[in-house]
Amino acid sequence: MPLSARNQLDATVSGVKHGSVMSVVTVRLSGGEEITAAITRDSAEALSLGDGDRVTAIIKATEVILSKD
Amino acid sequence: MPLSARNQLDATVSGVKHGSVMSVVTVRLSGGEEITAAITRDSAEALSLGDGDRVTAIIKATEVILSKD
Amino acid sequence: MPLSARNQLDATVSGVKHGSVMSVVTVRLSGGEEITAAITRDSAEALSLGDGDRVTAIIKATEVILSKD
Amino acid sequence: MPLSARNQLDATVSGVKHGSVMSVVTVRLSGGEEITAAITRDSAEALSLGDGDRVTAIIKATEVILSKD
Amino acid sequence: MPLSARNQLDATVSGVKHGSVMSVVTVRLSGGEEITAAITRDSAEALSLGDGDRVTAIIKATEVILSKD
Amino acid sequence: MPLSARNQLDATVSGVKHGSVMSVVTVRLSGGEEITAAITRDSAEALSLGDGDRVTAIIKATEVILSKD
Repeated sequence: MPLSARNQLDATVSGVKHGSVMSVVTVRLSGGEEITAAITRDSAEALSLGDGDRVTAIIKATEVILSKD
Repeated sequence: MPLSARNQLDATVSGVKHGSVMSVVTVRLSGGEEITAAITRDSAEALSLGDGDRVTAIIKATEVILSKD
Repeated sequence: MPLSARNQLDATVSGVKHGSVMSVVTVRLSGGEEITAAITRDSAEALSLGDGDRVTAIIKATEVILSKD
Repeated sequence: MPLSARNQLDATVSGVKHGSVMSVVTVRLSGGEEITAAITRDSAEALSLGDGDRVTAIIKATEVILSKD
Repeated sequence: MPLSARNQLDATVSGVKHGSVMSVVTVRLSGGEEITAAITRDSAEALSLGDGDRVTAIIKATEVILSKD
Repeated sequence: MPLSARNQLDATVSGVKHGSVMSVVTVRLSGGEEITAAITRDSAEALSLGDGDRVTAIIKATEVILSKD
């Protein structure tokens, strides 16, 4: 997808929890790590996200913090 | 690390480019995916980030966008 | 595009300025308003963004601040 | 308003949905596009946002992603 | 903490409100100012945040908007 | 200022560094803490930010991460 967002990670939905206006969606990367996304409930429903769906997690480079181990 | 940020991914620095006030750092996850972080140059220098450094990429759940494949 | 990001605005590139690692791109909406995006230079070059290009400006709902007039 | 945020779009509130701690507010730009903002419910109530209110949607340049059509 | 996030402010939790999937946490800085954080409810519970807890509020430099008085 | 952004901190500019397209501005809060903002150079110049200027640092609640000490 020709997006300026540098970070586009293939993932599989592993959990969806709906609140009244927000939803929290957990996805699993190929390496096994889990990523959580907080999106509007309208978005989650528009995409009808459910367990096992193949998705891409998109993250702008300006949103990533690094810590040195 | 007891952070509220849900997403903390182990990674290894694979590239650092310094601009005048910003730096762009590329890190590689265990599954092979690369993540790019745009941080201030002061931060990159304070952490003295260099190739091969073990880091954690931290991303708040509210910053993650999902697209359905 | 099946993105969870609620805000996807059609626009036309009206200006691109490259810094050493970041680029600032200005785009114009149908109503005439201008939107500025600060993205990595790598992204701007990967998309080879230039004046007149048709683009979509994508903004997550959690990033929008409102002020009452 | 003398804000560093580059993007300040005049808009009219077209919908407000309150959750328990978050609210989702939809506003319409002059060109007809809709923008959705996810803000805290405390903010939405402090501004007493309602349909038809004139607002400004404020978005930092670092939060805008571009995709090329 | 060796984080790239430039802004790390010592604070004390002064209020926690849980929604269904999001929580809003208010903390007080040494100078008396209050800062509000909207985080996932899972995070708030994982940290078991409560009134009087000593915390650090972490904010990436790219997320700060300035207005001139 | 009637902004939905919950966090509006009074501060004084203590440093400005201009890059080619981005600027990094440091401000000091009443309690002595410093906050760094990475903004576009166009914004820094439009506000003609300089040492000693009184400003407000504005941060959306969704951008704040908490860590427990």
